[in-house]
Amino acid sequence: MASIKDVASLAGVAIGTVSRVINNSGSVKPATRRRVEEAIERLQYYPNEVARSFKMQKSKMVALLLPSIWHPFFSELAYYIEDELDREGYKLMLCNSGGKPEKELYYLDMLKQNKVAGIVGITYNDIDDSVSTDIPVVSIDRHFSKQITCVTSDNFEGGRLAVRELAKAGARKLAFMGTVTKVHSETMYRKDGFVHEAGALGLDYVVYEKPDPVTDEESFYEEFIRQHSDVDGVFAITDMFAANYIERAAKRGIRVPEDVKVIGYDGIQDHRLFHPVLSTIRQPVEEMARTTIRLLFQKIAGENLERETYRIPVAFRPGETT
Amino acid sequence: MASIKDVASLAGVAIGTVSRVINNSGSVKPATRRRVEEAIERLQYYPNEVARSFKMQKSKMVALLLPSIWHPFFSELAYYIEDELDREGYKLMLCNSGGKPEKELYYLDMLKQNKVAGIVGITYNDIDDSVSTDIPVVSIDRHFSKQITCVTSDNFEGGRLAVRELAKAGARKLAFMGTVTKVHSETMYRKDGFVHEAGALGLDYVVYEKPDPVTDEESFYEEFIRQHSDVDGVFAITDMFAANYIERAAKRGIRVPEDVKVIGYDGIQDHRLFHPVLSTIRQPVEEMARTTIRLLFQKIAGENLERETYRIPVAFRPGETT
Repeated sequence: MASIKDVASLAGVAIGTVSRVINNSGSVKPATRRRVEEAIERLQYYPNEVARSFKMQKSKMVALLLPSIWHPFFSELAYYIEDELDREGYKLMLCNSGGKPEKELYYLDMLKQNKVAGIVGITYNDIDDSVSTDIPVVSIDRHFSKQITCVTSDNFEGGRLAVRELAKAGARKLAFMGTVTKVHSETMYRKDGFVHEAGALGLDYVVYEKPDPVTDEESFYEEFIRQHSDVDGVFAITDMFAANYIERAAKRGIRVPEDVKVIGYDGIQDHRLFHPVLSTIRQPVEEMARTTIRLLFQKIAGENLERETYRIPVAFRPGETT
Repeated sequence: MASIKDVASLAGVAIGTVSRVINNSGSVKPATRRRVEEAIERLQYYPNEVARSFKMQKSKMVALLLPSIWHPFFSELAYYIEDELDREGYKLMLCNSGGKPEKELYYLDMLKQNKVAGIVGITYNDIDDSVSTDIPVVSIDRHFSKQITCVTSDNFEGGRLAVRELAKAGARKLAFMGTVTKVHSETMYRKDGFVHEAGALGLDYVVYEKPDPVTDEESFYEEFIRQHSDVDGVFAITDMFAANYIERAAKRGIRVPEDVKVIGYDGIQDHRLFHPVLSTIRQPVEEMARTTIRLLFQKIAGENLERETYRIPVAFRPGETT
């Protein structure tokens, strides 16, 4: 494989000149630049990024730490994150933690060793002490006690919106259905928005919550159906909770939307080919991803950010369940 | 941040000794090793992987080049690929090409510059000339004219299996529905298996194919429904084709499975919460992913592989459409 020396020798210039052409730094006469570029092409020389990042002690690599790329919400997010990184020539390293704290810690350790330029983290575990303030980090949906920028959908407004849409569809007795995580997650504001709006509208409501994760799905939904048979409007914390509830309710003869209106949160159904198409609070996934990366770039550049939390507006997407 | 020098000085040893401890190479007395390890811990020293890969001129990074991580088949595949890489301490770089040849070429160029240890490629474009034989590559579903190892599901057997299952469900006039790519893809054997088995069983059948990608979805399915109203068993090249057909057929009053039995290919539905749950030829995604990475490791180690194509057995997964 050709080296920078070979290029310099073929072009009849000094190595420094080749380097200036490659890095677009310093002035090089147009004729010289052309000679160097021709030599690069003829020799099929590829500047070595490994060597470059050694010199700069910083790689153009950003790590995405998430529970599982297999989940449709995360894979859509990863898609746009990679696209936004690529605009600036950054690459994406993918790290599936499986949601396990020990795997997250292992990855954070590994990321320090690799000197990635930055980290985008989606975690629901308590790994506060291990998140270094040396490496620029932007978190999605989750606050850390350290001052780490967080990008999230406007969960509170999403909860309010769900109540208004359930009411508009004719529901009179509402239920929030979800789980509570041990650490502070922005997703909890979905319930707060629900409670706030139901109160403001003077609607009757219940909150049905269990600790996260749900270990016995069967009892989780059965208990809800048994205890709250008078509910005619359900706001589920995610689309998966909504779909699970609808499937189990149907087996008990409860029809959606005739008997109960249901609204989820996320918007994981790209196509309207599988039913029911859920009525849902759609996460602004693309905008969340691009905002996250733009903020990360600002941090990498050493800039101070205006805020700690960036909440992106959500919208209601009607489906077949309201 | 602590350097290797700081560690050596605190432990009272030479830098080379620290290096031997970190890399587990050469003999170090147990007591010395303990002193070095204590110094590493006290100083929170992280060996610098960037510097190490500069020295070795090879990074422990594997690139995954695919059309879009957003597609459920690819995100499941990426999940297991990352998991298998991680077992050997390798990291995954994710590259979405959007299926565009120019983006694929751009990524291949970038990958050469970064000196990744290997590439896993999923492409349906003709980028033969750009696939270097310098970098170990394993391809999924796609043959290159160069000798590049390919891992795929057993598409031919999958096509045969679909015919047998459609016949078992009572279908008498079968149709294959799909597209044809310009370059040679293993996925084409789905049709070949279908044709072979329908012939062997003496069943009446038609093949309905258009060039890939389908630009006008509406006419693609309308034309099929119009021209082949006597068909009572459809084998679609992917689950998405199957679901699209079922949705459009329903609007014309064609009931699945009562009037037409349908089998797809892939197995993208993880949950049985959205309907119809497709009867499908399930790709052995996990085994394909792990096989791909194990073969890639063999190539990275310079070993010769026994074969050029590795076909993993498939199975029929019954759903609600047969």
